[in-house]
Amino acid sequence: MSAQIEKAVALAHQQHDVYLASFLDLLRIPSISSDATFSADVQRAADWLVSEMTRIGLDNAQAIPTDGQPMVYGDWLHAGADKPTILIYAHYDVQPVEPQSAWEFPPFVGDVVDGKIRARGAMDDKCGVMINLKAFEAMLTANGTLPINVKVIFEGEEESGSPSMLAAIAANRDLLQADLIVISDGGNAPDQPFIITSVRGIVDGEVTVRGPAQDLHSGKFGGIVHNPVHMVGKMIAALHDDAGRVQIPGFYDDVVGANSAEKAAFAHAETDFITFQQDIAGVNTFWGDSTYSFLERIATQPTCDVNGVYGGYAGDGMMTIIPASAGFKLSLRLVADMDPADIEKKVTDFINSFATSTLDITVDMHAGCFAARCVSDGPIVDALTKAYEAVWKQAPVTLGMGGSVPIMGMFYSELGIPMTMFGFGIGDGQHAANEYLNLREFQRGIDTAIHFYHNLADAP
Amino acid sequence: MSAQIEKAVALAHQQHDVYLASFLDLLRIPSISSDATFSADVQRAADWLVSEMTRIGLDNAQAIPTDGQPMVYGDWLHAGADKPTILIYAHYDVQPVEPQSAWEFPPFVGDVVDGKIRARGAMDDKCGVMINLKAFEAMLTANGTLPINVKVIFEGEEESGSPSMLAAIAANRDLLQADLIVISDGGNAPDQPFIITSVRGIVDGEVTVRGPAQDLHSGKFGGIVHNPVHMVGKMIAALHDDAGRVQIPGFYDDVVGANSAEKAAFAHAETDFITFQQDIAGVNTFWGDSTYSFLERIATQPTCDVNGVYGGYAGDGMMTIIPASAGFKLSLRLVADMDPADIEKKVTDFINSFATSTLDITVDMHAGCFAARCVSDGPIVDALTKAYEAVWKQAPVTLGMGGSVPIMGMFYSELGIPMTMFGFGIGDGQHAANEYLNLREFQRGIDTAIHFYHNLADAP
Repeated sequence: MSAQIEKAVALAHQQHDVYLASFLDLLRIPSISSDATFSADVQRAADWLVSEMTRIGLDNAQAIPTDGQPMVYGDWLHAGADKPTILIYAHYDVQPVEPQSAWEFPPFVGDVVDGKIRARGAMDDKCGVMINLKAFEAMLTANGTLPINVKVIFEGEEESGSPSMLAAIAANRDLLQADLIVISDGGNAPDQPFIITSVRGIVDGEVTVRGPAQDLHSGKFGGIVHNPVHMVGKMIAALHDDAGRVQIPGFYDDVVGANSAEKAAFAHAETDFITFQQDIAGVNTFWGDSTYSFLERIATQPTCDVNGVYGGYAGDGMMTIIPASAGFKLSLRLVADMDPADIEKKVTDFINSFATSTLDITVDMHAGCFAARCVSDGPIVDALTKAYEAVWKQAPVTLGMGGSVPIMGMFYSELGIPMTMFGFGIGDGQHAANEYLNLREFQRGIDTAIHFYHNLADAP
Repeated sequence: MSAQIEKAVALAHQQHDVYLASFLDLLRIPSISSDATFSADVQRAADWLVSEMTRIGLDNAQAIPTDGQPMVYGDWLHAGADKPTILIYAHYDVQPVEPQSAWEFPPFVGDVVDGKIRARGAMDDKCGVMINLKAFEAMLTANGTLPINVKVIFEGEEESGSPSMLAAIAANRDLLQADLIVISDGGNAPDQPFIITSVRGIVDGEVTVRGPAQDLHSGKFGGIVHNPVHMVGKMIAALHDDAGRVQIPGFYDDVVGANSAEKAAFAHAETDFITFQQDIAGVNTFWGDSTYSFLERIATQPTCDVNGVYGGYAGDGMMTIIPASAGFKLSLRLVADMDPADIEKKVTDFINSFATSTLDITVDMHAGCFAARCVSDGPIVDALTKAYEAVWKQAPVTLGMGGSVPIMGMFYSELGIPMTMFGFGIGDGQHAANEYLNLREFQRGIDTAIHFYHNLADAP
């Protein structure tokens, strides 16, 4: 451990209560982005962050206006041209708190009880904001410098779907140039840090099939009127083969798949995680294309899932009708380098291939976001691995995230810069009531960040 | 026209108002069989009928107890051994009247306004009861005799699913022996009488597919957890081939199909009915197995229709989940000589053939009722045709009914006696509010019945 790391970590521990107090101050601002009632609070949180970033010594701190909520920016670019520039992302807006009655404590008081930092946003994602800022503060205070060049960008509308971020990123492409993007949103398992190699993109939409003008008597018209549910079944069945491979023509054209290092890492992680994951899912057996291990499938293979199906009578007992209409909702998880717009078109074409004169089929797909690959090996991963091992005394496992992080897809398509995920959220209540972050993660996060950013400075 | 017919018809016309008053008396009894509140009224209607049948000169009039509502019986067997014995069926119970607020007149006052006999049960099926009784009364009064031997059976629980009738028929098999069963339930088109050659049977049930213990995040688990909706789609798709033929193994084993007379009759009727039927259905184009004409399909081919499908999220917008469960309801319309119990088993076996270790599939089928064939040509049809032509001045068209009449399936399986349908209900509001029978049908029905029963006496 370098002397600089040692000094910064020691200072962070010494300042624990002060740093925590600052975190609690931010947690007390109800920066709910999806509810216009809280617009002033979102702005207040942005202003608070600008002051805080200025106070700890970042430059150019500002709340950049967007078409939606402000994007907070600051930088520190004095490490030297031979040091990497790291763009750090987190978001300072939070989910709503409905239903309030489900909360056992007030969501915006911000306190620490039984080793838990309790507040809406403690996990998602104000810890991502504040742990990074406190790591910088500790390093700047202890050593008067940072080991790397830093740009921070804190989003204010992640919890309302990031409607303005793609335009905001595109408009600030030069400002956001960096050698690496660090996404500080998400977390690890309680005693198991993760190296996340990818997140999936998403396309979703709905298919509607309309038949007769109203529900018909299945006796009077059974056998002579095309039943919309039958078409829905036919389309759903055609989405996959028996092995679970998606049958939409061209669906896999741009799928790259795992490299050999990832394959090995997934296989390694899988032995530890399969039972854990099956327990979470509540299934006895996993399913799918056995060409790939299950962690490899999540990380590097796209999916198509029907999320809901409807049509006709679904109540108790029977109604012997031919339903007037039926439909289903589907979402497709994409992997790099699949283009959501291309997949949207392929799904639409596939559904339209079922066109018939006896039913009216409409398909309404939405291109959600690109998948994003993170760096999966090399010096950046080594730097992160070393940081986890130093602080957690535990080697990280390598995983791909099956879910979608739209901002990463936006960075991927707009900036094309390598990314890594570096999250701190371990607790409970994310997007639900009684959100908290384990207190130990606040300190452990700052320590790991100090290590990681120092390690990056030394990466070849 | 024989003198006897002429005399009976003349008397019926002369007695029109008296006969109508008697019909209105029965309509005023709220014999709702599905609501225990009205049990005494159902019994009162049965008792009223026993008195009325005795008054007009039928023998052995009685309300035969069943496990449910009484079955009213009476006979007149003095026509001679060379004359046929006809068993006439109708039902005296009626549908409920909820919601009462939808009625523009009180449902059990029984009046005649604007050429409409207005009351719950006017169409379904007290006209079937009373038109027959008034035809007998007219013949007995005018001629002192009936041209045929008659047994009547009036059911009291048709509108509550006939739960006791199979046992009641079986227990009275000897009493109910006859040469022909006449089903007086149903109707014709306003100026187009029908010869109904068959009704379809039915089997129905529900298939449920259970996957994970709860809905799962489609990102975290997409590609590794078997989606129950996909299985539902696969099963629904497998029910039919592209031509609309049902693919359940053995499904068509016992299907007889139309004979050449029926084929010709359906083709004849179809030219008149296809536009009419498409308008009712609200479709531009009919669909299905083009091996058969559409009326032939309804009459002589079985179906399998999914009546409802459900699973996952069906609200506005998207929820990207893998649903914990999904399912569908299906009903199968049967033709003679398909056995509902056999079809129940074949459907169950078919669904069970999709068994997999990754999902829990349950199937719960119910054998509803047999199809029933009516006589479709020969002297009985000639007798009915001649009656319609004499009274309606219009030749009947030959059709098969696509719907199911459970009592006919019971007669078919328990008694095995030839059947014909002879209904009078032309109006509106059957099983709905504001039920009425067109006044002219009351008289036209009595006249047609007098002709038909006389014609049957002369049938070779």
